[in-house]
Amino acid sequence: MTITQTPEMPYYAVIFTSTLSKDTEGYEDMANKMVELAQQQPGFLGAESAREALGITVSYWQSLEAIASWKQQSEHLVAQKLGRERWYQHYSIRISKVERQYFF
Amino acid sequence: MTITQTPEMPYYAVIFTSTLSKDTEGYEDMANKMVELAQQQPGFLGAESAREALGITVSYWQSLEAIASWKQQSEHLVAQKLGRERWYQHYSIRISKVERQYFF
Repeated sequence: MTITQTPEMPYYAVIFTSTLSKDTEGYEDMANKMVELAQQQPGFLGAESAREALGITVSYWQSLEAIASWKQQSEHLVAQKLGRERWYQHYSIRISKVERQYFF
Repeated sequence: MTITQTPEMPYYAVIFTSTLSKDTEGYEDMANKMVELAQQQPGFLGAESAREALGITVSYWQSLEAIASWKQQSEHLVAQKLGRERWYQHYSIRISKVERQYFF
């Protein structure tokens, strides 16, 4: 999924990059479920993903409060724990404020 | 390539997402060349890329001035023009200020 409309600035982008461990059982189902759940969160604007050796998911949010609520969502907390224990070799999360945008 | 050290915040992330047209001749060579050139730009901190149906490249910069200089770099201007004329079906560029980060 991508953003279908252009959000008003400023809004926030969460840049999540990761590399997977060898144990990826259950990962894809969980990732899909998290996208579905995020869509139900207040302030969620959209998300974009691609994976080669590195996976990048950028999700877009109306506010820092919306991001904080999603971080604490109960099923998301379970996914985060499993991610650290099983699926991710490495990840980084950057919370950034979108200040300019161009589309073609 | 990824960021090997953790930059001091705030710094900037340029989130470039794109879909390619059918004519991708020369695209990969140009993309690789642009990464090499960006590495020579003042204020460049690193970049991360992945492509499936959608391509996402996030590049990291010390300042808005560094991003503006890269946008005007002469060979990069040629690449931008070819990108719009040939390679990209769609792209979006978001310039965002990284305010928080977490690593695992």
